[in-house]
Amino acid sequence: MSHPISPLAPERLPDLPVVAGVRFATAETGMRYRDRPDLLLAAFDPDTSVAGVFTQNAVCGHPVTWCRQILPRGRARALVVNAGNANVFRGAEGDAAVRREAEAAAAAVGCEPQEVFVASTGVIGQRLDADRIASHLPRLAGQLQPDAMVAAAHAIVTTDTFPKAAVKRVTVDGQEVTLAGIAKGSGMIAPNMATMLAFLFTDARVEAAALQDMLQTAAGRSFNCVTVDSDTSTSDTLLCFATGKAGNGPITAGSGPFARVLEELCIDLAIQVAKDGEGAQKLITVSVSGGDDDRSARTIAMSIANSPLVKTAIAGEDANWGRVAMAVGKAGVPVDPAALTIAFGGIAVARDGGAVADLDEAPVTAHLKGRDVAIDVVVGRGSGKARVWTCDLTHGYIDINGSYRS
Amino acid sequence: MSHPISPLAPERLPDLPVVAGVRFATAETGMRYRDRPDLLLAAFDPDTSVAGVFTQNAVCGHPVTWCRQILPRGRARALVVNAGNANVFRGAEGDAAVRREAEAAAAAVGCEPQEVFVASTGVIGQRLDADRIASHLPRLAGQLQPDAMVAAAHAIVTTDTFPKAAVKRVTVDGQEVTLAGIAKGSGMIAPNMATMLAFLFTDARVEAAALQDMLQTAAGRSFNCVTVDSDTSTSDTLLCFATGKAGNGPITAGSGPFARVLEELCIDLAIQVAKDGEGAQKLITVSVSGGDDDRSARTIAMSIANSPLVKTAIAGEDANWGRVAMAVGKAGVPVDPAALTIAFGGIAVARDGGAVADLDEAPVTAHLKGRDVAIDVVVGRGSGKARVWTCDLTHGYIDINGSYRS
Repeated sequence: MSHPISPLAPERLPDLPVVAGVRFATAETGMRYRDRPDLLLAAFDPDTSVAGVFTQNAVCGHPVTWCRQILPRGRARALVVNAGNANVFRGAEGDAAVRREAEAAAAAVGCEPQEVFVASTGVIGQRLDADRIASHLPRLAGQLQPDAMVAAAHAIVTTDTFPKAAVKRVTVDGQEVTLAGIAKGSGMIAPNMATMLAFLFTDARVEAAALQDMLQTAAGRSFNCVTVDSDTSTSDTLLCFATGKAGNGPITAGSGPFARVLEELCIDLAIQVAKDGEGAQKLITVSVSGGDDDRSARTIAMSIANSPLVKTAIAGEDANWGRVAMAVGKAGVPVDPAALTIAFGGIAVARDGGAVADLDEAPVTAHLKGRDVAIDVVVGRGSGKARVWTCDLTHGYIDINGSYRS
Repeated sequence: MSHPISPLAPERLPDLPVVAGVRFATAETGMRYRDRPDLLLAAFDPDTSVAGVFTQNAVCGHPVTWCRQILPRGRARALVVNAGNANVFRGAEGDAAVRREAEAAAAAVGCEPQEVFVASTGVIGQRLDADRIASHLPRLAGQLQPDAMVAAAHAIVTTDTFPKAAVKRVTVDGQEVTLAGIAKGSGMIAPNMATMLAFLFTDARVEAAALQDMLQTAAGRSFNCVTVDSDTSTSDTLLCFATGKAGNGPITAGSGPFARVLEELCIDLAIQVAKDGEGAQKLITVSVSGGDDDRSARTIAMSIANSPLVKTAIAGEDANWGRVAMAVGKAGVPVDPAALTIAFGGIAVARDGGAVADLDEAPVTAHLKGRDVAIDVVVGRGSGKARVWTCDLTHGYIDINGSYRS
């Protein structure tokens, strides 16, 4: 099943750099898709540190369970990703499949299975043919190339309408380091359970514990601030691999320029995921300020971003701020309607518990006709703030998700 | 804006009885709709007790604020309901409008304003012309009829595709009493903020405190178990009026046959609301058992019923149980995938953390092609259970909500 490319898609992938110590190879297994790569093997040089953030869904994929187990070692030598089958809810058989993948990759690249990270996305509940994946890995190990990140970005997508990648550079104690990332996903869960995956690669030397701190913080301000349909997938996986080839002194703190740029990279990729939201015609940025605290502001922002009525109103280019007020009110955190301000595109439409008198709706409607829609809410209680991204809710979402799995 | 009648609509309204002590009159104000009644006045004989349950939305309508203020008196003589304008988020002007309605109705029927309950549904944030409503009330007071409940059911609808009513009878200490109710709503919030309203009338004599206990319990098992789009309206109002004309000894306890039948009445009306969900093609009953407790089971049931991916799968008649497993997992309560059972139409499709082997999907698909879809989940942890109702998510929802307010 393929869908028209999102009108919010970037014109082209950025130029993807070589990240010293990282190599890629891809293959077509034909397990679910035809005539497209659906299997990625990435290999990392020794001493590559790793950090990871995973779905909070209690019914999580078997690959997520595996990654959580091996993550505390903080070391990675390989990554195996397949597209089309999520390997979720398969019991002991599902765990065995992941182990089979890890052992085959370990043998192919020469490391321990516990240094092999695995991610799968696609349909939930179907048996994953791990033997078939394993049969491709020895050949892929012989084809690993440092300059194949573009192929990697294409190999991990499922129902995405465009591949997603981003690059940042930053100087760490006089040494420029590179951060590059690829992501896939067109919904927290997309049709047939395609899922958000993001893999970040850097040549910086970063201690695993510091990398984990920075990645968790960055995820909280990027991927965890994106919602397409409020459905949390079983397989969301964010991994960052640091090869240490740049020659910088090891980064041991969870803050600083590297942490800032890592967050920028995550936000860049997260917004690309929102732009590829199922049926998306508009990117919606919801900013909330004046909350009791950041957590409260985020709860309100997510309540707005998850409201089907707000999202359909934006799809209809309707300055229906009453629906935004409704979504603020239902968020379950203290709000004072009389202190509430709601703005579209920076133009206040409601203030102090009532509509803005004699509002000229023309500029508001003009803003809503664009591809980038901004909803700003001032709660008027404290200094808490939050920003989240979503997309509008259109017929495309129903088309994509109402169709049969097969 | 009118939409095709829901295929789930009952063939006809039930025969609505006269409830001794209750009279109705309706009018066409032309404020928003043309050629249809949009204003209801109901009058109650002296000594009518009242109970009410209202929206939990922190941004609530001005009529809700008023009803909450006067409810503790436990007495009602009149009810005024208009359709098309919700009188929400209008500041002091909105409160003054409600007071104007209450004073005009009080003068017309001869009671205190604090004995007049008011409900409004329609667009949020627009000025309500209370003078125009008040101008109709004296004439309506002269036209009150005991046998006009059918007209009342039609006057309160907004974007509903069919009027909703139900009748029950029960014997209380040897005396048969009648309970009848009318409701409107095609979403927790429907297009243009149409909202769930339900008004129940009985000739039983019930102490206000007991009536309030029984109504809150019944609401928790009926209206609060319905979701169409997860959006909680600003104006939801459930009121029960008991005239005491049946001659039964006063009901003073919150339980017993009357409480049971009151709950049945509420469930009947609540299911009718779900059946008129925006774009609904199928009624979905989600039953969860084996939860840690009832609250936990309800959280899981609502997570399933609110999942856009589950609802679109049902719309597509797709036995996509993986999406149900996802919704269970994201509910935020403890679950053990290995103990989870998922069934469609009573046929288990997943059990013990995996798909049911060699499942014949034919009978499952046949069930999903029907109008009434049952999703049963056994969590396998405790004895908590819950049952909620929703509808499928179709193009009709986008059509209705993506169109402009005017």
